[in-house]
Amino acid sequence: MLPAAFTLPALARYIASGGSPVAIAAEALRRIKAWGDPALFLARVPAEAVLARAEALAAEGKRGRPLFGLPFVVKDNIDCAGLPTTAACPDYAYQPASDSPAVARLLAAGAVLLGKVNLDQFATGLNGTRSPHGTPRNPVVPDCIPGGSSSGSATAVAAGIAAFSLGTDTAGSGRVPAMVNNIVGLKPSLGLVPTLGVVPACRSLDCISIFALAVEDAATVLEVMAGPEREDRYSRPAPAGWRAVPAPQPHWRLAAPLVEQLVFDTPADAALYEAALARAGGPVARVDIAPFLAIARRLYDGAWVAERTAALRGMVTERPGSLHPVTRGILEAGLDKRTIDAWDDLDAAAEARRLARRLFEGIDALILPTAPGTPALADLAAEPVAANSRLGTYTNFVNICDLAALAVPAGFRPDGRPFGITLVGPAFAEARLAGLGARLHASAGVGLGALGGAVPAPSAPPALAPGELPLLAIGAHMAGLPLNPQILRHGGRFLAEARTAPLYRLHDLGKRPGLVRVAEGGVAVAGEVWALPAASVGPFLAEIPPPLGFGRVTLQDGSSPLGFLCEAVGVAGMPDISATGGWRAYLATRENA
Amino acid sequence: MLPAAFTLPALARYIASGGSPVAIAAEALRRIKAWGDPALFLARVPAEAVLARAEALAAEGKRGRPLFGLPFVVKDNIDCAGLPTTAACPDYAYQPASDSPAVARLLAAGAVLLGKVNLDQFATGLNGTRSPHGTPRNPVVPDCIPGGSSSGSATAVAAGIAAFSLGTDTAGSGRVPAMVNNIVGLKPSLGLVPTLGVVPACRSLDCISIFALAVEDAATVLEVMAGPEREDRYSRPAPAGWRAVPAPQPHWRLAAPLVEQLVFDTPADAALYEAALARAGGPVARVDIAPFLAIARRLYDGAWVAERTAALRGMVTERPGSLHPVTRGILEAGLDKRTIDAWDDLDAAAEARRLARRLFEGIDALILPTAPGTPALADLAAEPVAANSRLGTYTNFVNICDLAALAVPAGFRPDGRPFGITLVGPAFAEARLAGLGARLHASAGVGLGALGGAVPAPSAPPALAPGELPLLAIGAHMAGLPLNPQILRHGGRFLAEARTAPLYRLHDLGKRPGLVRVAEGGVAVAGEVWALPAASVGPFLAEIPPPLGFGRVTLQDGSSPLGFLCEAVGVAGMPDISATGGWRAYLATRENA
Repeated sequence: MLPAAFTLPALARYIASGGSPVAIAAEALRRIKAWGDPALFLARVPAEAVLARAEALAAEGKRGRPLFGLPFVVKDNIDCAGLPTTAACPDYAYQPASDSPAVARLLAAGAVLLGKVNLDQFATGLNGTRSPHGTPRNPVVPDCIPGGSSSGSATAVAAGIAAFSLGTDTAGSGRVPAMVNNIVGLKPSLGLVPTLGVVPACRSLDCISIFALAVEDAATVLEVMAGPEREDRYSRPAPAGWRAVPAPQPHWRLAAPLVEQLVFDTPADAALYEAALARAGGPVARVDIAPFLAIARRLYDGAWVAERTAALRGMVTERPGSLHPVTRGILEAGLDKRTIDAWDDLDAAAEARRLARRLFEGIDALILPTAPGTPALADLAAEPVAANSRLGTYTNFVNICDLAALAVPAGFRPDGRPFGITLVGPAFAEARLAGLGARLHASAGVGLGALGGAVPAPSAPPALAPGELPLLAIGAHMAGLPLNPQILRHGGRFLAEARTAPLYRLHDLGKRPGLVRVAEGGVAVAGEVWALPAASVGPFLAEIPPPLGFGRVTLQDGSSPLGFLCEAVGVAGMPDISATGGWRAYLATRENA
Repeated sequence: MLPAAFTLPALARYIASGGSPVAIAAEALRRIKAWGDPALFLARVPAEAVLARAEALAAEGKRGRPLFGLPFVVKDNIDCAGLPTTAACPDYAYQPASDSPAVARLLAAGAVLLGKVNLDQFATGLNGTRSPHGTPRNPVVPDCIPGGSSSGSATAVAAGIAAFSLGTDTAGSGRVPAMVNNIVGLKPSLGLVPTLGVVPACRSLDCISIFALAVEDAATVLEVMAGPEREDRYSRPAPAGWRAVPAPQPHWRLAAPLVEQLVFDTPADAALYEAALARAGGPVARVDIAPFLAIARRLYDGAWVAERTAALRGMVTERPGSLHPVTRGILEAGLDKRTIDAWDDLDAAAEARRLARRLFEGIDALILPTAPGTPALADLAAEPVAANSRLGTYTNFVNICDLAALAVPAGFRPDGRPFGITLVGPAFAEARLAGLGARLHASAGVGLGALGGAVPAPSAPPALAPGELPLLAIGAHMAGLPLNPQILRHGGRFLAEARTAPLYRLHDLGKRPGLVRVAEGGVAVAGEVWALPAASVGPFLAEIPPPLGFGRVTLQDGSSPLGFLCEAVGVAGMPDISATGGWRAYLATRENA
């Protein structure tokens, strides 16, 4: 049966039990109609085209594609071939020649595009009311803002239409809408996901972001989209071994702002924040975030407002009447800024990045409120600029400081308005933030978006942390065996038991086994995946005598961690013990013999 | 006996054979007097203080200090405790509270400071005539410019007073003076040497640079000064295992600009450039540097001139009469620049960096003229701005593109004016540039500065350093082949050509070979041993796809470094190319076929 909540595991189970991408697509189309928000989509993929795409996928089969059959929507400042890109400014519209690389990667992974959705015009705003197409309806609290600028991206997920969506985030547009819609918002590191084919806000700070019902879902989508793009001048490579899959840790070094630096809309919001800190487990250090709040003020007062203007100068100078009045005011403020002042801002940003690097030498994550609270639509109407600025209190500095962030729901006020927290870490720390975020989401006592349903319990690790590499041990290095201390000394930590794909033969070399891949007659061999600091792999390998070395080993689950491999010549004449299924079982037979 | 040329090896030999730092210091003081250039020093360390410092060093003994007893001078835009910092603007002078970190590191390594030297005011200029204190005398060609802005730093080394000196380099100030004084100028990667305590020109582009008589000397000084500084917002860590020690390679992938993009003062300059390319050995690809020439034009026309103005806004707006007239004109041009235009420049810089990254995926070094030629003092007097701009033709883009550069002498025109080349590589490629530069310097047929004396022959490459592991490359990772950049990116450095013991077979897997140990019928296979930082081996291995991995390879000399090994199953059915003796020979047969 089709799940009510389109989480990735629920849809994968549905497919695995015989369900079809076509039924999922049809249900998504039905939900669009049932939701009936005229301010949500700015351009739809025609229903017949959605169904045809799903039918084609069904005919092909999954073929290992991680987003197979998942319906998604895209903020209308990201190019999708065949649909206009408008950035919610009809006069700006153009027909892109091709998909942005991020969208192309999602489609290649089997996702099904439903259409382009509404946003604060030119991604300038955090509230969702700055669009000539109206304000998308918040499915959780209809009298409250949908958040912005990625308004439609967030409401489509919270309403259950899309399994995930793409937003963009320059100053918080990928996080504030997550909070007010009770969903997850993942703002990746700068340059991790290519921003080619995105209408620029601040080119140097723009990120494509992800909305999803659950943390692991967002992480999966990020892994699909991440990676350098040679044509993208703002793209940069992640460290070797980077993953987004949640990496839980038994111990965390956590921090929160000094109490006097925290502002909330109501005491209930404050209480939900403190409750989240308590759920984090262990001590939470209080740190001074004044330098970050200070650099945030420069985002709209300083150089970066002119970066927005520079990217849209034709609109601002030649067709200002085509702009939303609030957007126009912001963009025009960038026209007369002086470069000598911009350099002061850029120098201050360099200093803020330095302070951020220092902060995160000592902590794993900074836990912030995502925003002071969820305002009503009426609040924004009363104070369109001030109420918007307040929403960015805890988000504006993150991109300037080259940090990654994950917004997760943190409960509801007694009046029903959602509250959320954002976990902030250094660039490329997405896996760690996801590991903490999945746990805090599961313990928040919230449902999924507006859909209810339980937040998935965090999966047990395959918990590779940033800077770690997985290594399959198949012999005496396994837990409890004589060489295990060597792996521990190099910083290794146990991840999981595993079996190779049935491609190998195992031989007894004496005190150790030798694993050799064979062309035919291979068996699956039992082993253990250990996480090793990448920097330890070389020194560890230097201690391994021939004929053993490290290479790629293919596991039953299709992954291919590093592993112990043996030169084929080294097993010649040595007993083939493949029939036992693994070194540990073989040792048992020897003991019993 | 005291050496005429204060190279590091000559002074080290002098000390090792019983010489004293006191005698070196006394000789340096004598040479200052003999040279008698009133425009050289802006502030001297008193002679008695110099001698007292040398006596203290002599009393302590060398204690492993790499710069023990070496006299040096510092450009007067870098803080040295006890001496004023003026940037050649008397009205700007201040008394620094402490040494800049770079200077402090030199002193800790045993160097002896002689004083602060002249420069183009505020490091703005490439010619050396823009100082209220007069123009330092060029010791090689007295009627020619000393180069700038690091004029005194270069002439003090060329004249034999200082063993090395510090300059700064934002647009070429560490390279042009090297050429016109027939010495070496090393412009390190951005952020490698802290710039705390440097009077800013363009903070985001400024580097402390090194002048020395020989390449290895400059590399030694750089190793002393390099390394992150926590208080410096522009500091950044080098990759693990970074060194500056010259790393020669047997094969290079070299490039030069398209012929039509080259400008020279005279045909004799052009001939010296082409002769240098011929001395480089092997083919030199011609590449289009138009995008880099284009970004260079923005350095003085665009955002970065305002970065200079921003750093000195008090002087420009309140005391413009205190500025050198040419400098004042340049700095005032920055006052009315608009931020929206600056963002166009910064976006163009991001694109230029992307193109530079792509260029250096395919080549090890770009060989450029350091400047079109060495102008006479009269040329600068006639055209103070145009002649200065021409000097920056080949230098201006380097810092904007995040590149490292090494200027080395390349001979003399028939009229006696020096010419030089600059080797440009990606950030943190200093060792590679030094390896090539040392060889090109030694083969240039020039003496040391104005001192004569033979350029030292390049040392044999250092053996394995602590923290490095040897790795035998046998395929596309070897020098000059397509995957070599990957090994360089991981901090690899060439050690030696080598052959395996006759125990292996080599197969063609397509773009790469596979080496498999066999029980009989093995041959010796040619390869190269590279030194890799141990911490890089894991991340490097993580990028190597199956069927390849790392294991122990036995060499002809009996050693067994790590090496590329192939799973035996991976070579089944692939052509056995063992008879060629190695991948490089095999490629040659294919090309000839």
